[in-house]
Amino acid sequence: MFVTALAADAARIQACLDAVLARRAEIPLVQAMRYAVQGGKRLRGFLVMEGARLHGVPEAGAVMAAAAVEAMHAYSLVHDDLPAMDDDALRRGQPTVHVKWDEAVAVLAGDALQALAFEMLAEPVIGTADVRLALIAGMGRAAGAEGMVLGQALDIAAETAPMPLTLPEITALQAGKTGALIRWSAEAGAVMAGADATALGHYAAALGLAFQIADDILDVTGDAGKAGKRLGKDAEAGKATFVSLLGLDGARARAKALVDEAEAALGPYGAGADALRQCARFVIAREM
Amino acid sequence: MFVTALAADAARIQACLDAVLARRAEIPLVQAMRYAVQGGKRLRGFLVMEGARLHGVPEAGAVMAAAAVEAMHAYSLVHDDLPAMDDDALRRGQPTVHVKWDEAVAVLAGDALQALAFEMLAEPVIGTADVRLALIAGMGRAAGAEGMVLGQALDIAAETAPMPLTLPEITALQAGKTGALIRWSAEAGAVMAGADATALGHYAAALGLAFQIADDILDVTGDAGKAGKRLGKDAEAGKATFVSLLGLDGARARAKALVDEAEAALGPYGAGADALRQCARFVIAREM
Repeated sequence: MFVTALAADAARIQACLDAVLARRAEIPLVQAMRYAVQGGKRLRGFLVMEGARLHGVPEAGAVMAAAAVEAMHAYSLVHDDLPAMDDDALRRGQPTVHVKWDEAVAVLAGDALQALAFEMLAEPVIGTADVRLALIAGMGRAAGAEGMVLGQALDIAAETAPMPLTLPEITALQAGKTGALIRWSAEAGAVMAGADATALGHYAAALGLAFQIADDILDVTGDAGKAGKRLGKDAEAGKATFVSLLGLDGARARAKALVDEAEAALGPYGAGADALRQCARFVIAREM
Repeated sequence: MFVTALAADAARIQACLDAVLARRAEIPLVQAMRYAVQGGKRLRGFLVMEGARLHGVPEAGAVMAAAAVEAMHAYSLVHDDLPAMDDDALRRGQPTVHVKWDEAVAVLAGDALQALAFEMLAEPVIGTADVRLALIAGMGRAAGAEGMVLGQALDIAAETAPMPLTLPEITALQAGKTGALIRWSAEAGAVMAGADATALGHYAAALGLAFQIADDILDVTGDAGKAGKRLGKDAEAGKATFVSLLGLDGARARAKALVDEAEAALGPYGAGADALRQCARFVIAREM
């Protein structure tokens, strides 16, 4: 069953992150880093591990790459929750890092988690030197000013923009903010195997957008307790979302069509990619 | 003359950073990144380039590695200046990024500069895959929770500590906060050449500490106009510094002894390392 597989991979990824962080000094900075990498669905890490399985990549290397992208994702959440950014007090059902410690610790823990993600991608267990460099260069693009951070900057700018964003603008924003790291994750297995990542790239592009549309739907219809974070923020802020632009039914239909597209992109892999197909369906059915 | 050589390398490094950032979208995030990488002494970049020259490493690769460490240094300054950190309004004689834009842009521009630094270190021009990975792994350690960010966290924690730090504690703090990146820079040329970096490592350890003691001296005796930043902060905050612990004369004597130690460490390189010797003397004679 998909959720069992997801949980099993999540446990492997957590063990890897715990082992890496266990070697660090026992100070608030490192405690906050450990705290920030707890919990979550580990969707990005799962994509790495499942893509690696599809291509016969050894699990030890896949777990390290999966843990690296989860460290990167965790840093982005810590910074995104800061008062100057989204100003959130709750994440994954727990107080955010700047609430539990303070803003300085949150800035620094995020900074250190980003450095750690790159350091982990340089680990020999992941594969040949060329593979590791391809992952690192790709992560730099996916995480930085052409990917995730670009999307976050566009998102912050949208809050004070005179006009709500249009559908193409929101789509571009999300391709950066959540899409880039999801795509890196889905392609990583093929990259590690030195194989063609085109099919996984198509899958990830559709999946990433479906994921964000589902997030917007959850923001309106979800249960804050299950989601573990504050909901209804976007409507409150008068921000355009896929729901405000397409309506709730339109957004659901678009997400469903994207999941079909994601599943279809996996055609070349046959039944071997069933876990990734289930993952795509999970993304729009989840309650968190 | 040393300052001419420093300025010439600084211009080469700036051109590299400008070229890399010219390819990015024209949005506040990227404008802030460009702004943050302007100016400064480029001491870390100079160490990379001079170490590379000593080992016969081609300049094109050395400039890229030098620009990468300057991007990393620039990110650390942007985040260090944030209200929740050192809360500085002036840097290199200009308004800090969060003053000129806002805090969200400063957080994100810093985040993107860190990603960019790693992305640049993956560039093929720098050398073989193994060389680039060694630089990336070393940068992860130097920049993260075992290096620069650790030092920053200890520095922030010292502000609210019940007792001023002792000399060993301040020395450890600075070995992280400024020492780790200086050491990475000084060793990079040897790493790029696949040569032994021991001598450059000893040089850098002494240089880094001398640099910080000189900073503490400048904080007391310096001219804010020449320094381009607020001075007298540490005394104001009641923080222990090398000057408060050793006295002004004691701190000067210690810095001088460290410069002698740094110069002596370069013995194996003979006259070829004269620029690095001049650099060490510059570090304690500078007014900025």
